[in-house]
Amino acid sequence: MELINALNWRYATKKMNGEQVADDNVQQIVTAAHLAPTSSGLQPFEIIVVSNKELKEKIQPIAYGQSQIIDGSHLLIFASWDKYTDGRIDGIFDHMNTERGLPLNTTDEYKATLKAQLLGMPQEQQAAHTAKQAYIGFGTAIAAAAMLKVDATPMEGFVNNDLDELLGLKAKGLKSQTILALGYRATEGDWLQGMKKVRRPKEKFVTEIK
Amino acid sequence: MELINALNWRYATKKMNGEQVADDNVQQIVTAAHLAPTSSGLQPFEIIVVSNKELKEKIQPIAYGQSQIIDGSHLLIFASWDKYTDGRIDGIFDHMNTERGLPLNTTDEYKATLKAQLLGMPQEQQAAHTAKQAYIGFGTAIAAAAMLKVDATPMEGFVNNDLDELLGLKAKGLKSQTILALGYRATEGDWLQGMKKVRRPKEKFVTEIK
Repeated sequence: MELINALNWRYATKKMNGEQVADDNVQQIVTAAHLAPTSSGLQPFEIIVVSNKELKEKIQPIAYGQSQIIDGSHLLIFASWDKYTDGRIDGIFDHMNTERGLPLNTTDEYKATLKAQLLGMPQEQQAAHTAKQAYIGFGTAIAAAAMLKVDATPMEGFVNNDLDELLGLKAKGLKSQTILALGYRATEGDWLQGMKKVRRPKEKFVTEIK
Repeated sequence: MELINALNWRYATKKMNGEQVADDNVQQIVTAAHLAPTSSGLQPFEIIVVSNKELKEKIQPIAYGQSQIIDGSHLLIFASWDKYTDGRIDGIFDHMNTERGLPLNTTDEYKATLKAQLLGMPQEQQAAHTAKQAYIGFGTAIAAAAMLKVDATPMEGFVNNDLDELLGLKAKGLKSQTILALGYRATEGDWLQGMKKVRRPKEKFVTEIK
């Protein structure tokens, strides 16, 4: 399957060459994340796509100086909702019903159950739940980049609060979770390039109960 | 791109028809999750593949009676490490170095920094971190299933503790996170089938800073 070939091709590129990723490719990667499934279709996260050079230069020190921030052409920041709210949940279902040509009250019963469950959790747990949904989209974006032969470096190594402040995410009720630098691998200077891709032995990773 | 077509084709199938997913397809879906990237390559989760009928019948009530548990041929349970440990981290790096033909001490410095960071977190935060990695694999498996035209229903709706107990996960230091039922959509009896796929308006989901 082409996806498996792509996943074998990709690696967490440590050194990029400065080449631009075409806008069409960036759009396809974002679209894949946008199409990714999430719990009850809530999509409780957003993506900020940064190609602005000055802003990337401000982000780099927040991400411990990682070179891909500058040498990649685009940075995708995955930021999840800090919590669920009535308004956010209503917004999703109103939009869904409208798009499907259904009365807004179609989902009232389902929505009430969902709200009781989600809004009843401590805020920290709500944030953990939204973060996990963002990671589904993150994984999907990584897969999409690999399918397009665009290199992508997934990064958790940055100071979340500093990035949130720089991008004004807190005011939007968002928390940065991960960064994905998009670009093209440099031919030299990347210690990881050419290293064998290693995964846990499959028999320790998978248990089949037939 | 084929992945986007696949993501548009898929939906959270509510009614499956009982048809078996071929073993080769199941293996490819698991392989995709196995190849998914994770933080520092730790792969802090496992997949349990259940096709045993009696066991699926025991899982169904734990998952609020959802019919796909029975009508899908395979259930993938994504279970993440309950915490990081010295042994788990050593195991990953020893294996990685061995596979790359490098001395085991190659990664000592990196590993020490990583351990200080991960083992220094409260256990709840460690579990949140492993869970997020599992969701990357979960997203990748869903994408793989769609590429293979295998229907897959992602489920968070089950009683985690009960499933952990049934599968003996606690003793293995694992916590169930999500289930993915694999099978084929029934032609009738699925309210969601044929409904327009709706996602948040893209302009609310993506912000570009050029």
